[in-house]
Amino acid sequence: MRGTVLYAPRDIRVEERAKPTIQAPTDAIIRISAACVCGSDLWPYRGIEPIEGPTPMGHEYAGVVEETGSDVRNIKVGDFAVGSFMASDNTCPICQAGYQSRCVHVEYAGAGGAQAEYLRVPLADGTLVATPGRPDEDLIPSLLAASDVLGTGWFGAVAAEAGSGKTVAVVGDGAVGLLAVLAARQLGAERIIAMSRHEPRQKLASEFGATDIVTERGDAGVAKIKELTGGLGAHSVIEAVGTQESMMQAIRSTRPGGHVGYVGVAHGVELPGLELFYAEVHLLGGPAPVRRFLPELLGLIWNHEIDPGRVFDLELPLDQAAEGYRAMDERRAIKSLLRP
Amino acid sequence: MRGTVLYAPRDIRVEERAKPTIQAPTDAIIRISAACVCGSDLWPYRGIEPIEGPTPMGHEYAGVVEETGSDVRNIKVGDFAVGSFMASDNTCPICQAGYQSRCVHVEYAGAGGAQAEYLRVPLADGTLVATPGRPDEDLIPSLLAASDVLGTGWFGAVAAEAGSGKTVAVVGDGAVGLLAVLAARQLGAERIIAMSRHEPRQKLASEFGATDIVTERGDAGVAKIKELTGGLGAHSVIEAVGTQESMMQAIRSTRPGGHVGYVGVAHGVELPGLELFYAEVHLLGGPAPVRRFLPELLGLIWNHEIDPGRVFDLELPLDQAAEGYRAMDERRAIKSLLRP
Repeated sequence: MRGTVLYAPRDIRVEERAKPTIQAPTDAIIRISAACVCGSDLWPYRGIEPIEGPTPMGHEYAGVVEETGSDVRNIKVGDFAVGSFMASDNTCPICQAGYQSRCVHVEYAGAGGAQAEYLRVPLADGTLVATPGRPDEDLIPSLLAASDVLGTGWFGAVAAEAGSGKTVAVVGDGAVGLLAVLAARQLGAERIIAMSRHEPRQKLASEFGATDIVTERGDAGVAKIKELTGGLGAHSVIEAVGTQESMMQAIRSTRPGGHVGYVGVAHGVELPGLELFYAEVHLLGGPAPVRRFLPELLGLIWNHEIDPGRVFDLELPLDQAAEGYRAMDERRAIKSLLRP
Repeated sequence: MRGTVLYAPRDIRVEERAKPTIQAPTDAIIRISAACVCGSDLWPYRGIEPIEGPTPMGHEYAGVVEETGSDVRNIKVGDFAVGSFMASDNTCPICQAGYQSRCVHVEYAGAGGAQAEYLRVPLADGTLVATPGRPDEDLIPSLLAASDVLGTGWFGAVAAEAGSGKTVAVVGDGAVGLLAVLAARQLGAERIIAMSRHEPRQKLASEFGATDIVTERGDAGVAKIKELTGGLGAHSVIEAVGTQESMMQAIRSTRPGGHVGYVGVAHGVELPGLELFYAEVHLLGGPAPVRRFLPELLGLIWNHEIDPGRVFDLELPLDQAAEGYRAMDERRAIKSLLRP
């Protein structure tokens, strides 16, 4: 089969690789209908996260179940299924509490590389969710988005307790930040402030439900959020970047007693304890337990109530994966979809 | 009147000072029935927090209302009242959300020094809560405890979402940690693990409701909590120290999706972002919004349902305040009560 492999910084190749096979009775093999490039793929692509030799890439996937292990019960061959980037048993106490991304048996679902024709998904029963039938072609980008970016933005909004009557601010205008806007809207937020200085992203944020756009960053951004909220700060702030500046911007934009949901993978972040103490905000973040939200999200997509696939502004055949990476690296694209 | 003043590290004097007077129409003057020494008073006492000249000490108080400003409505002369160490209007949006310690008009209630015969309390209507009548003498230590240490331990337990069916761990065996044990018990926790290596404090923790005592600290303490919780960690961890070690011990002792309530004032704490991200725990802490809990806590004390005053294991006349500080500094006393 064809699959994407990172050899070295900016050296992405699509090459012939062995088709994955069932290795454990809880596995399933998926024939990928669509895969995509994640913001987090750019860290190793840019050489900021080192790799140990050639690395199959991609952890977002939607497709048709081709084969299942002997213990798989909930997922059948021929199902169209979406899964989280983290495989979980969905039965342990941590999963049952809704934190499947920290399942006691957690495995990285992207180990085999989802930017490929096929993917082996571990713990299929606890990881995959099947759609009610074969989706129309136009639903596939949105179903794919549920695998990570939508689920991650949604978790950020839930962690920030975005909801009815709340003023929500979103730090970060990548696909996750934009979908956090969509999530906050769905969760009933009254006012949603997107922080972005890129016109096409501002536009999509507004279409997803942002009521205000703030272009300032850092301390100026915090001051602007305070100005818009009677000096108090937002009730809920979603952090979708992962830098020191973005984390502090999120914490400082939140009113005392408010909630920060942070989903940007932290890079070089150190939170000052005394400032955090006096900020007196709730913090929750980490790798999103996408599996918790998948049934609801797939339902919303299936019924055309949300259209998160609009974050894909570049669609390429799998063989042009390298251009998909380049376009995101150069910020020419918000998110690249790859068709095997 | 007589009042306690810190002149320099370990130089505590009780001296004649001007009796406080009404300065704003929202003020009240309280004749102190009992005051006490807080663990946080030891920071300037030890010279770790610098002072700018002679500083009146103490911020925990219970006593009889002697005079009220012209705008005070809820509190009457002759009432016995308890107030938070932070004065709040209790009407602003932050107060209404339950975060009175971060009220938009917040003032430090201990500015005049509560280790004295009289104290001026700002924003009396929003800060003080009166008891149903004059308390019996034996209730006064418990009512005094509500002013800070009980309210703070209670906030830690609420922030950690200690409650029915939960396994709760408490890091820190000072008065706040011990009262966090009591709070977790009242909130219905199933199992309460007190982390302490001091026999008298272990004993009080058990009497307050601890089901397990762990003497290990740091990584060994974390390993012990994991061992006691099927490898998962506690659902709820209350941090009541404020050091780097105690914060990391609390975070690492919490299961993914669990809650850390931290009430130890942070000293030199820096939280590593990436570890926090993958820990995936809820964090909430800061100066306790004691006012939120005062009506409930005074009710429990009034009805003899809880006896938090047992943390006072040394009682002295106000004039011997210096010995009260020394005994706590040398860990001969958990907490010193001072009678003007």
